[in-house]
Amino acid sequence: MCEVGFFEGPEKLMEVWWKCLPPDQTKVLDNTKSGDLRTISREKWERILELVNCQIISVTKNEEMTAYLLSESSMFVSKTRVILKTCGQTTLLYSIKPMMSMVKEECGLTEIQDFFYSRMSFLEPKLQHAPHQSFDQEAQWLDKLFPNGAAYALGRINGRGCWYLYTLNSGVDEPDQTLEILMQDLDPDIMKEFYKNESSDVKHVTKISGIKDFIPEALIDDALFDPCGYSMNGLINESYFTIHITPQKECSYVSFETNFKLVCYKDLINKVLCAFKPAKFLMTLFANKDAPCSPSIKTFENIITGYKREDFQLCKMKEYNLSYGHFKKDTTSPIS
Amino acid sequence: MCEVGFFEGPEKLMEVWWKCLPPDQTKVLDNTKSGDLRTISREKWERILELVNCQIISVTKNEEMTAYLLSESSMFVSKTRVILKTCGQTTLLYSIKPMMSMVKEECGLTEIQDFFYSRMSFLEPKLQHAPHQSFDQEAQWLDKLFPNGAAYALGRINGRGCWYLYTLNSGVDEPDQTLEILMQDLDPDIMKEFYKNESSDVKHVTKISGIKDFIPEALIDDALFDPCGYSMNGLINESYFTIHITPQKECSYVSFETNFKLVCYKDLINKVLCAFKPAKFLMTLFANKDAPCSPSIKTFENIITGYKREDFQLCKMKEYNLSYGHFKKDTTSPIS
Repeated sequence: MCEVGFFEGPEKLMEVWWKCLPPDQTKVLDNTKSGDLRTISREKWERILELVNCQIISVTKNEEMTAYLLSESSMFVSKTRVILKTCGQTTLLYSIKPMMSMVKEECGLTEIQDFFYSRMSFLEPKLQHAPHQSFDQEAQWLDKLFPNGAAYALGRINGRGCWYLYTLNSGVDEPDQTLEILMQDLDPDIMKEFYKNESSDVKHVTKISGIKDFIPEALIDDALFDPCGYSMNGLINESYFTIHITPQKECSYVSFETNFKLVCYKDLINKVLCAFKPAKFLMTLFANKDAPCSPSIKTFENIITGYKREDFQLCKMKEYNLSYGHFKKDTTSPIS
Repeated sequence: MCEVGFFEGPEKLMEVWWKCLPPDQTKVLDNTKSGDLRTISREKWERILELVNCQIISVTKNEEMTAYLLSESSMFVSKTRVILKTCGQTTLLYSIKPMMSMVKEECGLTEIQDFFYSRMSFLEPKLQHAPHQSFDQEAQWLDKLFPNGAAYALGRINGRGCWYLYTLNSGVDEPDQTLEILMQDLDPDIMKEFYKNESSDVKHVTKISGIKDFIPEALIDDALFDPCGYSMNGLINESYFTIHITPQKECSYVSFETNFKLVCYKDLINKVLCAFKPAKFLMTLFANKDAPCSPSIKTFENIITGYKREDFQLCKMKEYNLSYGHFKKDTTSPIS
């Protein structure tokens, strides 16, 4: 088992929703314009991802979505939505303008319906490339692209565990909810599972870690990196979940994200925390008016055993309720 | 009526709570140590305020509190709490360490119980002196004094109307609630009342503006500045309210603040908005567990006629609930 140096696990996360082509407009487009992002070839996506500094390592798909496992995290492509999540020193924001041009060219989609860029505070912001060295820098970059974007900082801005968001506040025309659990300082014994060795089998790791049981019916694509690190994408009809693990002791980090439409996330959250046993984590939940889990505030109240909540914020935006919580292991609790 | 140039109305606000001297400790102190901040002389406060760049212009008191009207806003001194609020290019944070030394020397109070520093985003941050040029700079200054302070940014950090807070999250041992309404782009006809002319009478201004009726039983100290501007302090038993007005058209601003312990602020908020008619305002409400108005979230729901809420945030901190709302005149409403 070989230790590697520092790695920035905390991801940059972008979600772009395009407006559907109206039915009559689809007809006037020439045949090469599909109005569907899933018709874009792997090669075209690779050209965009080159700008971000990451590569596609694997692809899975179901009827609703194509899931790309990347050298640095994941990408999910639905008919009119792209979710791009990249860790390390990637330059995610470089992709936006070229992606918009490519999408217009390939699919005829031109109007952005809503846009989200979010991330937690980096462990080592100085190691990032501009404009990712501070959230102010990122927000200025985005302000040039979107004149009415709104930038928020949730949690303590003078500590670790702050979470930043940039959004257009314009809303989407379907139920939408996203849960993220960003975990730090994980149990070292559990993290050992995510190092590659001669007998490593990623399917076995996905099973014994408990990940396989998080959402049992999911179609899973998983990868174990050399010398360490783990990524997985799961597809369940129109929903996804994704996990990325940086097991190194000095910077251990696990992210869990899903838009699986549960009414209550209590059981799923407890499965995730029980599998990884973080010393601290932050959790965010977005839900729009039609989302089944709304009002999301209940998810943050008294249901997380063994952890105490340090901070909670509820942000009522124009179209979404957003909840943020920062939790630490409760050393006074008998369960911890 | 003579127009003056730009003035930074938005205030820096600091609230410091000291721990009471325990009864047995009071006895061992020599007679010059009162354990009571109200025994500090005007001259001693003047020396502290010199560092901030403001002067005392008037003093009122009741049995609970001494209220100072300052050349730039206000100061309220209770037995173990100081509230200092200063506008313009004042350097409020310069006062903390000297104030702590002076309080120790004069009263024997040495332990800070809780601490709050807050302000909205400045109109012209570049005109401020360090460390007030950005909230990051202010938070770094405060981090050196308080190792466990927490810094928050509520509202849109890439727009005007963001509101910053630094606090120790340590709590106080009595019911506490504070409402602030920070108003911008005010009705120009109303603002004309706050210019000084030959026939000006501040008592008349306080009456016709409606301020006299906000909390009718209050003991009021008010001042009209030359050529324009208005300040007032009101005392009601153990509570205060304070208003500061910058009437210039290019930077019009009115602040209203009170810790008057109402269960519901609806009527008071509507009186204030009706008196000044801002095009936009932000409102914050702090309430600890024992405060009569808690849960404060209701104050921000559907009670403010003629305004639409752009953003709402609820921050559940260790000892306080803090609500933030940003509102704009609703041009679609029949009432506006």
